[in-house]
Amino acid sequence: MRIAVDAMGGDHAPEATVEGTVEALKEYRDISVILTGDKEMIKKELQKYDYPKERLEIIHCSEKIQTEDQPVKAIRRKKDSSMVVALRLVKEGQADAVVSAGNTGALMAGGLFILGRIKGIDRPALAPVYPHSGGYSVMIDGGANSECKAKNLEQFGIMGSIYSEQILGIDRPKVSLVNVGEEKGKGNELVKEAYELLENSDLNFQGNIEARDIPRGKTDVIVCDGFTGNVILKLTEGVAITLFDLLKEKFTASVPRKLAAIILKPGLREIKKAYDYTEEGGAPFVGVKGVLIKAHGSSNGKAFKNAIRKGRLFVEKDIVGKIESSVED
Amino acid sequence: MRIAVDAMGGDHAPEATVEGTVEALKEYRDISVILTGDKEMIKKELQKYDYPKERLEIIHCSEKIQTEDQPVKAIRRKKDSSMVVALRLVKEGQADAVVSAGNTGALMAGGLFILGRIKGIDRPALAPVYPHSGGYSVMIDGGANSECKAKNLEQFGIMGSIYSEQILGIDRPKVSLVNVGEEKGKGNELVKEAYELLENSDLNFQGNIEARDIPRGKTDVIVCDGFTGNVILKLTEGVAITLFDLLKEKFTASVPRKLAAIILKPGLREIKKAYDYTEEGGAPFVGVKGVLIKAHGSSNGKAFKNAIRKGRLFVEKDIVGKIESSVED
Repeated sequence: MRIAVDAMGGDHAPEATVEGTVEALKEYRDISVILTGDKEMIKKELQKYDYPKERLEIIHCSEKIQTEDQPVKAIRRKKDSSMVVALRLVKEGQADAVVSAGNTGALMAGGLFILGRIKGIDRPALAPVYPHSGGYSVMIDGGANSECKAKNLEQFGIMGSIYSEQILGIDRPKVSLVNVGEEKGKGNELVKEAYELLENSDLNFQGNIEARDIPRGKTDVIVCDGFTGNVILKLTEGVAITLFDLLKEKFTASVPRKLAAIILKPGLREIKKAYDYTEEGGAPFVGVKGVLIKAHGSSNGKAFKNAIRKGRLFVEKDIVGKIESSVED
Repeated sequence: MRIAVDAMGGDHAPEATVEGTVEALKEYRDISVILTGDKEMIKKELQKYDYPKERLEIIHCSEKIQTEDQPVKAIRRKKDSSMVVALRLVKEGQADAVVSAGNTGALMAGGLFILGRIKGIDRPALAPVYPHSGGYSVMIDGGANSECKAKNLEQFGIMGSIYSEQILGIDRPKVSLVNVGEEKGKGNELVKEAYELLENSDLNFQGNIEARDIPRGKTDVIVCDGFTGNVILKLTEGVAITLFDLLKEKFTASVPRKLAAIILKPGLREIKKAYDYTEEGGAPFVGVKGVLIKAHGSSNGKAFKNAIRKGRLFVEKDIVGKIESSVED
């Protein structure tokens, strides 16, 4: 299995991307990696490590897509950027998956323009995992489509269900629709229509889920439009950070509290670990003709390695093929 | 000032409503209260307390709107319900405000049908406060309108700003629009259009706010459609509860941890208190011709008293008049 890695994408590229690649090559002996990017910079990073050279190739690229680049323009104009070249490797069958921590908008635009949509999927979607007390739910759409139609939400449900079952190992994943109330008939036109479609699908549809039940892990696949998904992901992060800051403030307010806090620190660390994005790796952009994994922009080596692991799993389980056959009539 | 109290609304009615009323009468000597509901039940509750009888009146009602009642139908048919009678008292000028912990949908429908909209406000909205580390933001719309137009969002901004300034005492409140990114031009059609309107208004508009910055108290007025507002409020609650449950689990995992946790308990309690809805009272339904306060359905006596306090403040500051004059041309 060959994985194309955009070595120049992300806040800590190419250090983190090279480190993650080397770690992945050591851990997964069935993969080889093609790094795209500035050859000199990549080689300099690689000097730090001992790695299986026969499974690593570098393709030099003269350009790089920046965070501030306008996505569509960047994909169209920067033909020799590390991201575009990595995507083309998948398109041309020279790689089985692409992993990038670069500009999210550009990567999604590249997925659409270079890889193309799976027939029957109108809108590909980002599908990050949502950590809850007992594991992970799949959140789809995590932010690719701010404007959605009911049909899109139904397709998100199908793709999320395949992801949950095949990658997270959940049997007959529960699929729920984010809404303002549990009862059928609640919410805006979009969710009312989507409810009907999901109810009549082959999915294990559980009806509506209120936002308060999402962190409790009440469902396996959280279906919503990308605007709502973005709000849910970012708000969860914001509330957790704010509460941990408050805890820190309260726990350091006096000497006895500081001492007590030392004893409880391992417990706090366990909670933080459960919410640590580096554990889970990247979010797939599902619905395109190819495996495309978006690693977090601030990925360190470990997070990037886990994004490669996810790409490998998506190829191994043939998620693209399974989506294709589940949407064809 | 006369306040109409729906004595039969809420999970703990009429115990909590009567208790809250008595507390409010004792604390605010400039108010009198008209309790609407089952006279016998109310009288029985009142026997528990010593209270200023000259400032309390009871109007007997033979009906009660239930939680499961269909809102519009309930308001139209249950003419002698405690909620409808309380609303009519405001409509007819016999009371200055109405406070109810009853069926939210019915109360909003009643506000629209009985009190009517302020001229220039197309969609009244629920405006609960959002607790953050340094105080309170106003969240508008907190769930009244699942489907909104850009014009509605602009009006929410105007009403929220008046609320923040007059009731929470914030000078030139910062108004922000919930969106998926900070830059102008982000998001769906609704927020793109709303951005233009808010930018060209007289408000102290700060542009977009990402959900992660809401719990940090980055803004004073959080503007969004009611679907998004509902998701934000419920998700905040869900994440906080889940994290506190996890803390409890980790802090009781061993004897040393249990002992350490005893020392930190007051700190945890301080955090919980900051997020305690009973402190802040009810959420006003703004944009109708009259002061209408929705108390939390699970209100205890203290929470209900604080909802009456909020109603009193809204009357004192003439929020309805200020909204009227700010939307007329």
